[in-house]
Amino acid sequence: MRPDAVPAPTVRRLSLYLRQLEAMQEGGKSTVSSRELGAALDLTDAQVRKDLACFGQFGQPGIGYRVADLAARVRTILGADKPRNVVLVGAGRLGSALARYEGFGEKGFRLVGVFDEDPDRIGRDVSPGGDLVVRSMDDLAAMVSEQNVRLGIICVPASTAQAVADRLVAAGVKGLMNFAPTPLKVPADVTVSGVDLAVQLEQVSFQVGVLAAGGEGP
Amino acid sequence: MRPDAVPAPTVRRLSLYLRQLEAMQEGGKSTVSSRELGAALDLTDAQVRKDLACFGQFGQPGIGYRVADLAARVRTILGADKPRNVVLVGAGRLGSALARYEGFGEKGFRLVGVFDEDPDRIGRDVSPGGDLVVRSMDDLAAMVSEQNVRLGIICVPASTAQAVADRLVAAGVKGLMNFAPTPLKVPADVTVSGVDLAVQLEQVSFQVGVLAAGGEGP
Repeated sequence: MRPDAVPAPTVRRLSLYLRQLEAMQEGGKSTVSSRELGAALDLTDAQVRKDLACFGQFGQPGIGYRVADLAARVRTILGADKPRNVVLVGAGRLGSALARYEGFGEKGFRLVGVFDEDPDRIGRDVSPGGDLVVRSMDDLAAMVSEQNVRLGIICVPASTAQAVADRLVAAGVKGLMNFAPTPLKVPADVTVSGVDLAVQLEQVSFQVGVLAAGGEGP
Repeated sequence: MRPDAVPAPTVRRLSLYLRQLEAMQEGGKSTVSSRELGAALDLTDAQVRKDLACFGQFGQPGIGYRVADLAARVRTILGADKPRNVVLVGAGRLGSALARYEGFGEKGFRLVGVFDEDPDRIGRDVSPGGDLVVRSMDDLAAMVSEQNVRLGIICVPASTAQAVADRLVAAGVKGLMNFAPTPLKVPADVTVSGVDLAVQLEQVSFQVGVLAAGGEGP
């Protein structure tokens, strides 16, 4: 199956399979069945087999999957087998916390630059090791080009998010993770994933209200 | 339409409509057409009318919607017309940043408690105003009960997330926003929304790879 024909939920589950397989590898497990892998993620074994079949055959009947091989294969499919450089724009509280978020590094992402327009923030250290300081937006394009950066994280207020996105795209970034509470307009060859934390909490809150009302209308 | 029959994408868009309407209200706009509201969010006017029709008629033909009335109505539907108390567990870097994240307050959420098991973190100030300090997990159940808390944010490592979820649910929390990179098992009357930031960035990265390959297989 062509990667662009793989359903989005399958791609999302690949990330979850990989996390699980890596945990199994650390635990010294060498083979895993689709049933075991599914049980760990609350999925049926049929779903697991179907998802992995999108990318060719990996398992052996009666034995299952070799954990290390399957992990390596999923990593390759996801592009997680090579380090991918990332820049982050907006070094406020959330941006600074994300700059230190270990989860990105564990997935093979490498944060190579943090940028802000605010002179008070430029020069400030935002890494645990002290090797990442906030830089001026004037340095953004050069960094993206020199470090071959394709991914950008936007943590600025809604009012400046589109301008920041435009600069990232102009510099050559092709994928954006947008924490600003506003939609972004980008060219067709650029992917945007919006993360609006307040909206997500509002959705949970709405569902809690629905369930509390026993599913009855207002 | 019963609230539990409203499609999830519609609920998600309600949050976006509300954000837009509030911005219009601040800008002094009194009426808005479905076309204007849609254009601001990259939606068709038909989509806007269909979404809002799920909850009854609001607009007047030829005039459109009264901004203040529609905002108030959407706020009521979302339950955002009354303050909703929230607790947060896990006062590491991400948890501390989320405790200070203004977006939740802007949506009418009120963070009433931040909890951690680590004695080094207990007592530490995590609010801009200095009126929110990290408390021991021993105080969690009493706070949830006293403050009538129905929503919890989990920012602990994957290894302890299920135990934290169990304690929140036992205390009476009905909706969870889970930042730990692991699925949670909860009773049927509890809603969980998982926010795995590293997985989301991995999804963006995968799409960038797909688009770069011109949609061709590996």
